[in-house]
Amino acid sequence: MLSERVKRLVPYTPGEQPQDKAYLKLNTNENPYPPSPRIKTILQDFDIESLRLYPDPLSERLRSQLGSRYGLSREEVFVSNGSDEALSFCFYAFFGNERGSLLFPQLTYSFFPVYCCFYDIAYEPIPLNRDFTINLGKFVQKGGCGTILANPNAPTGVALSLKEISDFLESYPPDKVVVIDEAYVDFGAESAAPLVRRFPNLAVVRTFSKSMSLAGLRLGFVLASEGLISALFTVKDSFNSYPVDMLSQSIAEVALSDEVYYQAITRAIISAREAFRESLLAMDWNVLPSKANFVFARKGGLSGKEVYLELKKRGILVRYFGGEQTRDFVRITIGKKEDMERLTGEIRRAL
Amino acid sequence: MLSERVKRLVPYTPGEQPQDKAYLKLNTNENPYPPSPRIKTILQDFDIESLRLYPDPLSERLRSQLGSRYGLSREEVFVSNGSDEALSFCFYAFFGNERGSLLFPQLTYSFFPVYCCFYDIAYEPIPLNRDFTINLGKFVQKGGCGTILANPNAPTGVALSLKEISDFLESYPPDKVVVIDEAYVDFGAESAAPLVRRFPNLAVVRTFSKSMSLAGLRLGFVLASEGLISALFTVKDSFNSYPVDMLSQSIAEVALSDEVYYQAITRAIISAREAFRESLLAMDWNVLPSKANFVFARKGGLSGKEVYLELKKRGILVRYFGGEQTRDFVRITIGKKEDMERLTGEIRRAL
Repeated sequence: MLSERVKRLVPYTPGEQPQDKAYLKLNTNENPYPPSPRIKTILQDFDIESLRLYPDPLSERLRSQLGSRYGLSREEVFVSNGSDEALSFCFYAFFGNERGSLLFPQLTYSFFPVYCCFYDIAYEPIPLNRDFTINLGKFVQKGGCGTILANPNAPTGVALSLKEISDFLESYPPDKVVVIDEAYVDFGAESAAPLVRRFPNLAVVRTFSKSMSLAGLRLGFVLASEGLISALFTVKDSFNSYPVDMLSQSIAEVALSDEVYYQAITRAIISAREAFRESLLAMDWNVLPSKANFVFARKGGLSGKEVYLELKKRGILVRYFGGEQTRDFVRITIGKKEDMERLTGEIRRAL
Repeated sequence: MLSERVKRLVPYTPGEQPQDKAYLKLNTNENPYPPSPRIKTILQDFDIESLRLYPDPLSERLRSQLGSRYGLSREEVFVSNGSDEALSFCFYAFFGNERGSLLFPQLTYSFFPVYCCFYDIAYEPIPLNRDFTINLGKFVQKGGCGTILANPNAPTGVALSLKEISDFLESYPPDKVVVIDEAYVDFGAESAAPLVRRFPNLAVVRTFSKSMSLAGLRLGFVLASEGLISALFTVKDSFNSYPVDMLSQSIAEVALSDEVYYQAITRAIISAREAFRESLLAMDWNVLPSKANFVFARKGGLSGKEVYLELKKRGILVRYFGGEQTRDFVRITIGKKEDMERLTGEIRRAL
């Protein structure tokens, strides 16, 4: 009864989401701190009668607010039901086989090949350097029909500098789009948002799920030139006219107003990451340098799956991956300082 | 810089959503009554810390609750970010050119051809009968790669009976999917939900936006056999793993528990519709028989656009459409009794 299209799909596998809350969850890169306390007030005062009406399909207030935050106009901002929806729309709008294969790093966010399969877009994975950095020269050389990168990269946490990205954009064909997924950028990497006006072929994708601690809400956004944003609206209006609900729009607006709170929790996470990295190094682990709210690390002689299973027994969830390059690693989300101390203790005892 | 795919798109045009709230909005089929008052409590007590975590990607609790409501299991229910997203996923999963063109009525929800364009699905519109009823015999005769209907139909409000639908399913090829969009079914039509177990090729799409008065929330669902539901999950997990946020799941659960309230507001809307229809007939309008929360009506000598413009001047928004069959009509959402009395007065004075 199904279409040929759907029979081909190999869906993305998200990390485990146990609904019993018995685990210390260090597996899906959630923020260990609650979102801004101001959200409590918004929920208490929310006029529930307004829910009978459709939300603003253009999310004008929220887009203006995001625009001012990044020095852009509302017309240079798109908002979506989580950044995964924004990424999906970018694939549809910007990448097509008529101009070659899409390029992305061989090791990166594993949803990228899934979108390609969904929309039947050919792709060419570009191998990482041996130190897990991205070889941007290869991307320039190949060109393709466009490029998508995660910065910091997933699941490595390794970041490109703003200088590297801007040099890359200088030499990449200006009529092909470069999408940068900055889900984790606030944890110490440099955003390419300041380059949006200089490069009309650049789209920066962001999320409220990580540094804003609102994974439960589903909100993402894109910063790009008016031409690219307008194409994303065309896609949205051919798929779902109202993807961002009214409560999410209001909550996001209030969260954005609480910058001081968010700076404080972000600093705490970065400091917990650095301390945790030191502990792992002291226990003779190999840890990639991370600018994200997770580390990608391995212990000689143990596979990622073995580490995962041992820690799960002890009530802590981390994530492991298949694949030659990654099977020795685990990806560990950075929690609060005390979470990381508990994990360090368990690792010391167990492994 | 754009893909060929996106250049082809002709997006859906939703009804006006003026953000100043100065109008009596009878143009987008919103419910005139607030949603269940129980939602207030949910928002007040909501643990905002939980928003730091991803929502349940399977929406298990909500799907179980919907299942019990319709005598189905959780595995026969899918939930989505509004019913438009569910419809889009149905097009992707069930309809493909390899088996012919998709069939739908020539006059129906105008998003259907937009989805076809989005996924490059060929379609064949089947003309309505002269009285605006759907000619199901033609659908059986053609077969196509599948069928999608709205029941009651949009923008006419005209409904098929359960007997007509079940006879149709009996004679339609069992290996081709029939999707029925029941956005408006609660306002007096008969749902095909009781047929889901008898016809594994039937998918019933529903929404919380209309009878549940939660358009601001974005929540839809699908009732179908496990095989079809599982294909919708494959599509979701290749597009956006977490499309339904945590607050929406909680609010929907509580709204579903308040059946008595919803029955009362639905009765009030049906009774306002019947009274309004009588007033229009008394003023010599032509009004199609409606089982929805809107009526499709025309006044000889006036185009839909003229009626729309005249009423807009008087602070009331209704909706008109282009096209030969529809240009003489306006679609008027049923509000509260007093809203319809105000509209009746304005029509009497103006037209």
